[in-house]
This record gives sequence, C-alpha cells and structure tokens, in this order.
Amino acid sequence: MRTIAEFEAAARERLDPAHYDYFAGGAQDEITLRENETAFQQLRLVPRVLRGSDKRDLSVTLLGTPSSMPILVAPTAFHRLAHPDGELATARAAARAGTIMIVSMAATTAVEDIAAAAREVTPDPGLWFQLYLQPDLEFTEAIVRRAEAAGVKAFVVTVDSPVLGRRERDDRNAFHDLAPGLAVENLRNLGENRSGGNASHVREIVMSAGLSWDHIAWLRSKTKLPVLIKGLLHAEDARLAVHHGVAGIVVSNHGGRQLDTVPATIDVLPEIAAAVGGALPVLLDGGIRRGTDVVKALALGADAVGVGRPVVWGLAAAGREGVSEVLELLRADFDQALALCGGRLPTELTSDQVRR
Amino acid sequence: MRTIAEFEAAARERLDPAHYDYFAGGAQDEITLRENETAFQQLRLVPRVLRGSDKRDLSVTLLGTPSSMPILVAPTAFHRLAHPDGELATARAAARAGTIMIVSMAATTAVEDIAAAAREVTPDPGLWFQLYLQPDLEFTEAIVRRAEAAGVKAFVVTVDSPVLGRRERDDRNAFHDLAPGLAVENLRNLGENRSGGNASHVREIVMSAGLSWDHIAWLRSKTKLPVLIKGLLHAEDARLAVHHGVAGIVVSNHGGRQLDTVPATIDVLPEIAAAVGGALPVLLDGGIRRGTDVVKALALGADAVGVGRPVVWGLAAAGREGVSEVLELLRADFDQALALCGGRLPTELTSDQVRR
Amino acid sequence: MRTIAEFEAAARERLDPAHYDYFAGGAQDEITLRENETAFQQLRLVPRVLRGSDKRDLSVTLLGTPSSMPILVAPTAFHRLAHPDGELATARAAARAGTIMIVSMAATTAVEDIAAAAREVTPDPGLWFQLYLQPDLEFTEAIVRRAEAAGVKAFVVTVDSPVLGRRERDDRNAFHDLAPGLAVENLRNLGENRSGGNASHVREIVMSAGLSWDHIAWLRSKTKLPVLIKGLLHAEDARLAVHHGVAGIVVSNHGGRQLDTVPATIDVLPEIAAAVGGALPVLLDGGIRRGTDVVKALALGADAVGVGRPVVWGLAAAGREGVSEVLELLRADFDQALALCGGRLPTELTSDQVRR
Amino acid sequence: MRTIAEFEAAARERLDPAHYDYFAGGAQDEITLRENETAFQQLRLVPRVLRGSDKRDLSVTLLGTPSSMPILVAPTAFHRLAHPDGELATARAAARAGTIMIVSMAATTAVEDIAAAAREVTPDPGLWFQLYLQPDLEFTEAIVRRAEAAGVKAFVVTVDSPVLGRRERDDRNAFHDLAPGLAVENLRNLGENRSGGNASHVREIVMSAGLSWDHIAWLRSKTKLPVLIKGLLHAEDARLAVHHGVAGIVVSNHGGRQLDTVPATIDVLPEIAAAVGGALPVLLDGGIRRGTDVVKALALGADAVGVGRPVVWGLAAAGREGVSEVLELLRADFDQALALCGGRLPTELTSDQVRR
Repeated sequence: MRTIAEFEAAARERLDPAHYDYFAGGAQDEITLRENETAFQQLRLVPRVLRGSDKRDLSVTLLGTPSSMPILVAPTAFHRLAHPDGELATARAAARAGTIMIVSMAATTAVEDIAAAAREVTPDPGLWFQLYLQPDLEFTEAIVRRAEAAGVKAFVVTVDSPVLGRRERDDRNAFHDLAPGLAVENLRNLGENRSGGNASHVREIVMSAGLSWDHIAWLRSKTKLPVLIKGLLHAEDARLAVHHGVAGIVVSNHGGRQLDTVPATIDVLPEIAAAVGGALPVLLDGGIRRGTDVVKALALGADAVGVGRPVVWGLAAAGREGVSEVLELLRADFDQALALCGGRLPTELTSDQVRR
Repeated sequence: MRTIAEFEAAARERLDPAHYDYFAGGAQDEITLRENETAFQQLRLVPRVLRGSDKRDLSVTLLGTPSSMPILVAPTAFHRLAHPDGELATARAAARAGTIMIVSMAATTAVEDIAAAAREVTPDPGLWFQLYLQPDLEFTEAIVRRAEAAGVKAFVVTVDSPVLGRRERDDRNAFHDLAPGLAVENLRNLGENRSGGNASHVREIVMSAGLSWDHIAWLRSKTKLPVLIKGLLHAEDARLAVHHGVAGIVVSNHGGRQLDTVPATIDVLPEIAAAVGGALPVLLDGGIRRGTDVVKALALGADAVGVGRPVVWGLAAAGREGVSEVLELLRADFDQALALCGGRLPTELTSDQVRR
Repeated sequence: MRTIAEFEAAARERLDPAHYDYFAGGAQDEITLRENETAFQQLRLVPRVLRGSDKRDLSVTLLGTPSSMPILVAPTAFHRLAHPDGELATARAAARAGTIMIVSMAATTAVEDIAAAAREVTPDPGLWFQLYLQPDLEFTEAIVRRAEAAGVKAFVVTVDSPVLGRRERDDRNAFHDLAPGLAVENLRNLGENRSGGNASHVREIVMSAGLSWDHIAWLRSKTKLPVLIKGLLHAEDARLAVHHGVAGIVVSNHGGRQLDTVPATIDVLPEIAAAVGGALPVLLDGGIRRGTDVVKALALGADAVGVGRPVVWGLAAAGREGVSEVLELLRADFDQALALCGGRLPTELTSDQVRR
Repeated sequence: MRTIAEFEAAARERLDPAHYDYFAGGAQDEITLRENETAFQQLRLVPRVLRGSDKRDLSVTLLGTPSSMPILVAPTAFHRLAHPDGELATARAAARAGTIMIVSMAATTAVEDIAAAAREVTPDPGLWFQLYLQPDLEFTEAIVRRAEAAGVKAFVVTVDSPVLGRRERDDRNAFHDLAPGLAVENLRNLGENRSGGNASHVREIVMSAGLSWDHIAWLRSKTKLPVLIKGLLHAEDARLAVHHGVAGIVVSNHGGRQLDTVPATIDVLPEIAAAVGGALPVLLDGGIRRGTDVVKALALGADAVGVGRPVVWGLAAAGREGVSEVLELLRADFDQALALCGGRLPTELTSDQVRR
C-alpha cells in the first residue's frame, strides 16, 4: 500500500461498517471533516532549489520528548474496535518509529499496559496522555496519577468538547456501545462515584461545558508534567494559552467531529502561530495525509503535526505492522517533500514557501 | 428524524408534488434559493474555549414579546395545503415551544382562529402579523383592525413584493388555485370592493409597485403596535428604515422566491447590522437549517432568525407534532452550537467568530 | 414557452444539428461562450424598496433611434438557416416590438428586403447595419451605400475579427457552405472583383487583420450616419473610441465565437463605462438570457443590450411569432426585474445595486 | 486532428497503457499536473483592436539560437517508448519547424544521432541539451563534452529534482524498466564507474539532493555555451539565478511530475519576470495546449514557451509527421490568437492584456 487512501480502503473492508463510520465520520454535514483535507490540497508549495539538501535530519524534540520526526500519533479512541491488539499495537509501532504517541483517555487498553508494550520496543518511549477534565476533579486527579505512574511525559487537555458533537453517522448506525468485552479502561476501578467498573458505553467520558482556564490552572497545580491544551482555533485563545502558562498548544478541530463548519486547522495556523510568536510549541492535527501536508504545516508555523485516522486505518488494515507502515510511509513522504522544497531540517521551511 | 433535510424528505413524500414545489421552489433559476443555504455553509465558525458555558439561557425578548429562543416561525402562506390542521397546528406548536409565530396574511386560517389555538396552549402567545399593504388602504386598515382584535403584538410589512416573483415550478405545474375549500381567510368578509368572500385564488392578495415609505408612515399612524418591515437587502434602505421610525427590520429575500440572484441574506447582514448600528432589532430569515446557521446570524448582528420552510416540512410530515419536533430540533442544535462556540447567551456571540 | 432556455431546446429540435452547432457554438473550448452566461449568474442584484415604482417606462432613444425597450436585436448571420422566412421574420418581429434590429452584413436576405418587411409593420423601423470593413474599400463603400439606400440609421462596425475565430464544432461538422439556395445577399451584385454573384460560402466575407482606426475615419468620411464600433473589451480601446469620434460602442466578444478565454462582456463593462465616462452610448451583448441580466448590464453602465442567440432560437422555433415571443418574454422579464429592484426607468439603476 | 487533446487521444490508443501513464502522469494526486492546464484556462485575455496586425512575424532569437516561433520542444525522456523512431523523429520535426529542440539527457537516442537527424533537415539545427548534474562530476563533464561535440548550443540544467518525484501511476504499473533494447543512450560508454554500458533502467540517472549553486558555477567553468537552469518557481531563486550569472531560466514544475501541489508555472511567472527584470531570458513550460496559452505566457513575461507532452502525443500518434502536425497546429493557433489580440510580434503582448 502506497498511500493513506489505500490504507483507508483496506480498513474499510475489514471494519464493521458502524465502526468504520465512527472512525471516519464527522459532525453533521461533515464540511469541516472534508475541508481539513481539501484545505491542504488548496495550498501551494513553492520549492527552493540548489540548496544542497542531501543531509536531511527529520528529528525534533518537543517539550523534552525527542521524536524521530515531526509527525506524532494523535489521540484517537477505541483502538480495539479497529483491531484486537488495539492500543498495544499502536504503541509498539510508535515506539518502533521513534515518535510520540498521545494516548487517548478513551483508550480501550489501560495506559499501564500501553506503556509496557512500548517499553518492549524501546526503554524510554515517548508517551503523552490526552485528558478530558472530568467535572469530578478528584476522579480527574486519579486519572492523572495513574497516567503519571505509567510514565507519560505530558498531558494534552482537550478543550473543544464542552458538549459532544453530533455525528449523524453514529446516530444512523445507533452506535452507542462498544463491542462486548471492550471498555474505556483508563476509567476502570477509579473513584467510587463512577461506573468505571464496566465503562463499556461509548459516551462514558463526561463532557463538561463548565470548564474554564481555572481548571487548567488546577491541573498545572497537580502535576509537574507539561500541560498542553488541544482544540484551539481562535488566535485570542492562543494568546490566553500563553498568558495562562500552558506548555504548548495543539491546533485542532477534533478531526471535524465536534462543531461542523469550523475552519480547517491549517487555515487558522498562520494567525495562531503569529499570536503565539514562538512563546511555546504549536502542534496541529486534522487532515494530514501526505508529506506535503506536513511541509505546509511546518512552513506555516507548526513544530509538529499529529495524525489520527491514518494510524487507525493502518491498525485496522494490519495491526502493529499496519501502523508501522503508515508511519514509515508518512516519514518517507515528508522526507521527499522536504528535499524537493530544498530543506534539510524541519525548521528550515518558511512561510513564503506556502501560498493560497 | 434528526435533521431538517429528513423532515423535508418526509414532507415531499406526503405532499401533492405541485404543493411541494410551491413551498420548496424559488424564483427563476433558483440561484438565490440555493445560495441562502450554501452561504451559511461557506461561513466558518471560530469557537472560543474554556469559557465556562454550562449555564446557557437561550431566551430573548423582541419588541416586548418574549421568546424562549431566538428562532421564530417566519410567515409562510397556505398551511392547510401542507396539512389539514394548517395554521392551527403551527400556532399550537409555536406556543408550546414558547416562540413567536409571525402569522401570514395569506394564511388559510383566520387570525382569530390561529390566536385561539395558540391560547389553548399558553395564555399570552407571541403572535405577530405579516402584512401586504393593499392599494385599497381602507381594506388594509380593516385587516389591521382584525389582526389587532385577534391579539397580535406587532406588524411585519413585506416590502420586497412590488410585483409577484416568477416561480417557474408553479408555472410548469399550473399551480394557480388553492385546493377546494381553502381560502385566504384573513381577507374573507372584509371590505365591499373585494372578492374576499371566496378568496380561493393563490394570487388573491394584490402586490403593489406603488408602495413607498409614505405607506409605512400611514400604517404607523393607524396602529400602536410595533411596525417592522421585512424584505430589506440594501444597507441604504436599512438606514432609511431607522430614519422613518420603523420598530425593526427583517433581512429577507422572501426565501429566494421574488427576485432571483439577489444575495443570500446572511451575506448582506453584516453591512445592514452596521448601518442600523443597534438602533433597532434586526431579524433575518432565509436558509436557516442548522444550529450553526443561527449562531452565524447572531454573531453577525441578528437579534433573532425566522424559519419558514422547515416549519412547513414539519407540518406536512406530522402536523402539530412535526412542527414541535422541528422547533425542538433547531433549539437543541442551536444550544449545542452555542456551547461549542463557548457562549452562554445568544448575545455573547461576536463577529470575530465568523469568517468567510 | 417561458424561458430562453425553452426556446433554445425547441430550436435544437428543429434545426439541422450542424446548423444548431453553428449558432450555439463558440471558439475552441467555449470557455468564454459559457462565461458570458455564468458571469451574469454570479452577479448579485441588491434591490431597493418602497420607492413607488408602479409607473414604469422602459423606452430609450439610442443615437436618435427610439426603442420601446433597452433590448435590441444583435446582429447574427444566416437567419434563413434557422427558418425559411429568415431575416424577414426577424425584422417584422423587431418592428412589432418597437425595438432596434442591427441587420447583419452576413444576412441571407438583402437589406432592402429586410427594410421593406419592417416597413410593413411600422413606417419608420429602427434598423441599423452591421459592417465588416472589407480590404477592398470601394467594395465596402458599395455596401455602405446600399444599406443607406435601404434606410438604415447607423452603422455598427465589427472590430473583433481581424481573423476568423476557430469554432471546433464547425470543423467537426465540416460546416463550410450555406444550404443550397442561400447566399450572403448583401454582397450579391456588388463590385466586379468579387464572387458576390453566388456568395454561398459561409466564409465569403473577408476578415482583415490590417484594419486600424484609419479605416474608421475613412468610414466616417463616407457616411453621415452614426458609426459605432462593436467588439471592444479593453478600456484603453474605449478611450481611443472616444478620441477617434465614434458615435457609440458595443462591448462584445462576438458571442464567445472569436477568441476563447476573453472575459465575459459584463465583467469588463464597469471599467469600460468608467473609461467612456458618459461621452457616448455604451451597448453590450453576450449572455443576456434573463431580465435580471438586462438590469445588471444597465446598472453597470450600459445604455442598452443586444440579444443574438435568443432571437435565433425564437426564429428557429416559430418564425416571426417565435421572435416576437422571445422579445416580449425578455421585455416582461426585464420589467419585472426593474420593478423588483425598485426602479421605474432603465436609467434609475445604479452600480451599487450590483455586486460580485 | 485539430487539437492537442485529439493528439493525446490518438496517442493513448496506440501506447502501452503503462507508457501512456508514464508520459501523462504526475506526482501523487496530480493536482499540479491538472492545474498547469486549468491555470491557463482561468486567465482572461483582453484583446486590443484596430491595430493593423496583418504583417505578423512570430520568430524570436533566444541566447543566439533563432527560432521560427516562441514555442520550443521541451525536454522529455524516452521518445522510443512513444514511437520506434524516437528522438530522431522529434528532431527532424523540430528542425523542419525551425524551432529549438531541448534534447533530454534521458533520451533513448544518443545526442550525436539526434543532431545528425536534424542536420538532414537543416544545416544548423537549434539543439539545446538538458542536463541532470550527476554527483560524479567527471562523468557529468563527459556528458557535457559529448553534447558539445554533437553541436548543441546551450545547456539546460534541471534543478527541481534533488530526489525523484513519486508518480503513483508508475508505482501501480510497476513501470521501472525501459522496453527491451532501449537504453538511456547518452550515458552509454561514458565513465568507468557507471553501468552506462546497459543503462536500461528508467531511473538510471542519479538525482542528487546535494546540488547547489556551486555546481552551476562549476558547469559554467567547464563550457562556453550558455547555461540555463530549469525548474525555478520561487522569485528569490530567480534573483539568485541572475546573481549567479546563468544565461537564462526556465520556469517549470517538471510537468507536475516532481512535487505535487506546487503552483502552476503560469501562476508564478509574473513575479519571476518582475524579479528578473529583463536581465535574462525567461522561458516557461507546463500546460501549454492552445495558442492562447502561449499568448498569455508571453504577455506575462516569458520570452518563449516549451511544450513537452504535446510533442510526445504527436510522436506517438504519427511519428515525425505527428510531431510536425503538433508544432504547426500550435504555430497556427498562436498566430491566430496573436492576431485576435491585436499583436504583430510576440514582443508586443503586454501584461494588461491578461487578467485573472
């Protein structure tokens, strides 16, 4: 398989259609879902030539975590719906690729088991943990402690989900429960006031519209790990993120799954990068399918990008091996695009090389 | 049914095709008809995050009339073509939803009966009355008195119809007469020089190209109720509306049914809101199908929006119950979009949250 | 039949496909051909309201020739290919409509016969004559004298045809000769050095790349009638037209038949109108199919518009009667659009009422 | 056959599908491939009129090499895959047309044989040589000497290929080797450390990401012939080209075959022409299919254009005769477009005649 599109086609063949729709779908009319990809296609890359770009080095270090390339595994839920090996396979592939995996709080495997699988491959895997702050802060703190104990190196707080987005594919498919035997394992056996013991309901995690910057401050007071926030699209919120001392931000629209008709992430990146002004690392996810997409995001101000669905398609198509192939495909594709743009390092790309 | 599109599909199945076309169609090539919807889809919403938006309150008060949400029932003609219960069903559903219904002068039920049906649900229903000023002013005054007596709380004068638009679907269907037994009931038994006694002809109401601001002044002199004008698209006319002392305006292109290739209403809203400068309430109709559409209109300066065809589709699909479902669907969808934009109140949305 | 599109469909059914293609086709990829129409569809009309537009008067006077409406019959060749009555039918319909017909030099009926047919209807018909200046100036002068003798009131010199455009439909259809019995009658029996005696070849008229403003000066020296030039698209040429003392200009791209990818006429009208600054009348043809198209052209600076293919479709569909129906359809459609824009006179439309 | 599209259709019928794909295809999603053509279609040409354009002269002289028209044969690889006569046929047709052929280093015929074939037609054919600088400079110098000895008049160094682009059609077709008996003949018997003896592998030529302006300086020190660089898209690189003393540049994206989503060449031409400021000749290739495309490129600052695929389609369709027909078709089409724009000479076209 040579392209992410081919991996998606293979995944679609293997997956229960309702599960395929769960992974593939977006909010309402799926306008943002599509635009995440088309926005990249509409940007034009202007290469530089004759710059001697033969000794390329793709590696980056993000908030102290090294990565062999600026392409991370974005958090996505329910990997065991995609493949029996679930997050264990994903973690092994990410570790093998030497890149960071942001473990989803809604994983179907407990973070301790994920970390153990990654450590089979590499002694110090780059695992971060994605967090939905729960209204019950004691319960949230228990999750934080659990993830810290498992060895994660940063927290990525999702802030684009005060309520859950409406995904009409899921409504049509009446997709509400995980398959038998699957559960949101990170919530199991945590806290008394939770049904964590059998968290098999898709919407087990509580979305809270009451979240504010105070909750971010609370989290920062509870952990020494870097706290990033994920789900920003407005430049003013990026300024606030700097003001409130978060460690980094992820420009994301939740893969087009929360509010339809929000902008493609790549379309707001330039103004967010300008608002942040280099004060903290800026990551981006949403629509990355080609090496040229990575180049465009870096040129416009991202320090790295996350890939969500491509990883799921690789996982569904061929388990650990599929995820590895997807990550290596993206690495090679990015490397080629970087070379063709006349760059040697991810940091050499400049915004004049991208235009609409 | 989960979307307005599904209600329209259900309505289409139940309606006489000529009646479906009457409700669904627009002027000539239907360019504006389609653009009313696509213009919303082309706007991008930029959410704010971490603003603690859990205690939302959707209610508004418009010219003294409270509404449980900023989504009104826009005036549309001939509800008994859509369902035997006609405007009675619509009025009961609007009353139940706690929102304002703008009764159409071209209703197939008399305004007194509509008001009575609404009062079965709530003691003080929010009914407004849409008016085509007739060249025979005495006759017009009789209609005004009749509506006032029925308890309406405002008049909404349609100003975009100096002549009737050409709807080629109706021409092709030879749709000229209401079904047997139906009539424009608000004109019945009013004035001697009118065929009001059996006003069964679709085009019974006289369009007059002679109307001017003087006629608006005349109407204001005849009633103490607020007088809004509906059908403005030019900012200069909005300024004139303020100058001439109208109580409010409705930015509308008559659902794309009058002059083809006029702009989508949402596309002219910003400059009209700027021209009005908060001097009077600005409403908008045309193309509202999703909660995000409502959010966009409010963010760009509308105080509320009207929905016309969605109400007709609900009515045709399932009578009173259908209209209720449509209104609650829109309420929930708007509430969710507001939350996802980080807003608690309809008035908190700002124009920087919308972009092209 | 209610629209020009319906007339075209009827004409297509009756015409020899090669003749249909001759009339319908454009140069090469037909990009300009299509854009002439779509450019109008992409413009938005912003109506004014409450202006008392009940006493409308559509009539205009152009260079001394009165017309009952600002919609003229543009010159098109070979009407007898469309209908046996050919230009005679067209002339009678134009006279009946009280509008100007610009007789094509490439008519299949002699200008004297056309004028006689028009005079059957009205004593002083508004006929103008379209001229390709021929390299043989003596021959050209003979044509001018012939047209003057027939009573035409202006000359319209085509300047967009230094060479003939490539119409691939005609190439594919091998359409090179008129049907048996037909000829370019205005060239018959004129001059010795011409094959005018049996001018049955489609390309009988000589296109000349050598034409310059000097030739326009020569023509003006040979006739007292107003000389317009037709086929301008560049504002600088419009300035030169004023400088060289022509009586009027026709913004035209020859119906998209000469050079593909030139702009739609409506798209260059504003800058040409600005360049001319009211110094002389500006006409426009190309893509007029709806009353709203006429309104847009007038609002953007045209004094009148020409319709070419619509007339041919009317003629092919139903002879004189068909042309009359087309002209009355356009009149009624324009009148309605004018009223809906709040205008009483063609001259009241303003450029702020049109936007992209 | 009347258009390049017809030649392509004929070629497609005759070619092995994998070879058709090799010639027709582009990088990855082929966005740039398509845009090279559509970008021309989206530009509008504004003709000038009445300029006396009857004595047209299409000839140009480029860096000392005369050409009968500003349309050159761009370098393309492997002509013997298209037709048994291969580059010999192309060279004869180019010589007959009196235009410049840029011989591809990846020709399947040795440059000496190509030059001999051209000399059969004309004593002093206009041959240039396209060069991929090889990491082994001695080997590169041997190629330079060989081409000089064959009589080429300029070198055109491709600079857009630090690595080879990914063409997914070739991957799908597993197209890696030339047909039996074919080889990259210009590499045969040159240098000891090369497999030049049987260079039958498609990717025989080494792409080098290490190339820099120093290598261009090296080449200039090794030859007295003019050195152009081909594959620039960034205005800053055009400025560097002037600074580094190259003789000319070719604005090219390698026919959309290297990096997908780079701009269409015509879209970057204006800024590159501005950057160069007339200091050296600017050529352009990519997407030229019509005479109007040539006019647009010249009006926006190109001194001449190259055509690649059209020549291959002519060759595949009918050998030498097919290439001749393609070149004469383009010449006639350009001549007609020039006349219709009111121009006599290629240099008379101005940038105000092109707009978006």
